[in-house]
Amino acid sequence: MFISFEGTEGVGKTTLIGKIYHYLQQQGQDVVLTREPGGTPMAEHIRSLLLSVNPDEMMSNDTELLLMYAARAQHLQQVIKPALEAGKTVLCDRFVDASFAYQCAGRGLSAKKLNVLNQNFVSYLPHITFWLDAPTEIGMSRARERGDLDRFEQEKAIFFEKVRAGYQSLFEREGNRIKRLDATQTPEHVFEQALSYLK
Amino acid sequence: MFISFEGTEGVGKTTLIGKIYHYLQQQGQDVVLTREPGGTPMAEHIRSLLLSVNPDEMMSNDTELLLMYAARAQHLQQVIKPALEAGKTVLCDRFVDASFAYQCAGRGLSAKKLNVLNQNFVSYLPHITFWLDAPTEIGMSRARERGDLDRFEQEKAIFFEKVRAGYQSLFEREGNRIKRLDATQTPEHVFEQALSYLK
Repeated sequence: MFISFEGTEGVGKTTLIGKIYHYLQQQGQDVVLTREPGGTPMAEHIRSLLLSVNPDEMMSNDTELLLMYAARAQHLQQVIKPALEAGKTVLCDRFVDASFAYQCAGRGLSAKKLNVLNQNFVSYLPHITFWLDAPTEIGMSRARERGDLDRFEQEKAIFFEKVRAGYQSLFEREGNRIKRLDATQTPEHVFEQALSYLK
Repeated sequence: MFISFEGTEGVGKTTLIGKIYHYLQQQGQDVVLTREPGGTPMAEHIRSLLLSVNPDEMMSNDTELLLMYAARAQHLQQVIKPALEAGKTVLCDRFVDASFAYQCAGRGLSAKKLNVLNQNFVSYLPHITFWLDAPTEIGMSRARERGDLDRFEQEKAIFFEKVRAGYQSLFEREGNRIKRLDATQTPEHVFEQALSYLK
């Protein structure tokens, strides 16, 4: 079982993933908790390149997308593929839907670029994806409270509106896989919503 | 004018590029000298990730290919595109042919993966490419004399034989663009060969 968690900044993904992780462990499952971009030392190195704020050189949109998929390829080979083949459950904080939402809907890259990368470099898709949805201002104020903002978090409100709309369009296209959770509710209520889908 | 230089380790690319750089400058041309992977601070950062030897985590072939194209996308946007649009001559130490030779012929990745990346992420191709060809053992002994070997240079002889065969097959397919130079000759003679094609 491969479960991914999606949503804009500050919507409570980490809290929900932690609750599901403990729940599944209590059920006796062997669970791997990981995240993107990242999940291996090398992929985390790529993550830091993606998130670090560099005032001297703007990262091109193509570079951003290709770095995301370089990290993903490493993560797939080193973590996701071995875990799934060993019968473990993988909980992943963000996966391919984030690339559509952030790089295509948010940055404006063509979906064709994303599709060829998915077709040629992504061998596993999540069985179920939880989309934690909330008005972007709620999440952004939570992210600001956490401290220094990374290169994505520094984007303007309009960027996160586009990202949220990207998730919405994915949800409309792939409702079988993607489950929308109302992230304005309490963490307990969000967890209960997720659990009802998992059962 | 966009000129790239290709070949396995230690065949004398740097020497030839330096000679052509000075020759074109003396002709009054505005020349940009650059290299791949790299060419911008961010792309050089990706280069160091690609070349560094990491005994704790093997880089997947997909990751290697995608990192090459991430660096290339940045290099294209920041250096190659602006230079060509300003009418400058670009001399580039390795470009897309290296990805075919090293990642496809050398590592065994499918040409389809490379083709979709070229079609979607590479907007400029060299007008002329000089392939410096020599038996791989000559180049490898030169590379070993230079000191510490990087992640590619540490490969076994069979890898470089495959890379050289990759360049050979590109040369056979694209003889109009790719010019083979006999890199077993003296640097002066290699330069004269290149100059005869440039004129």
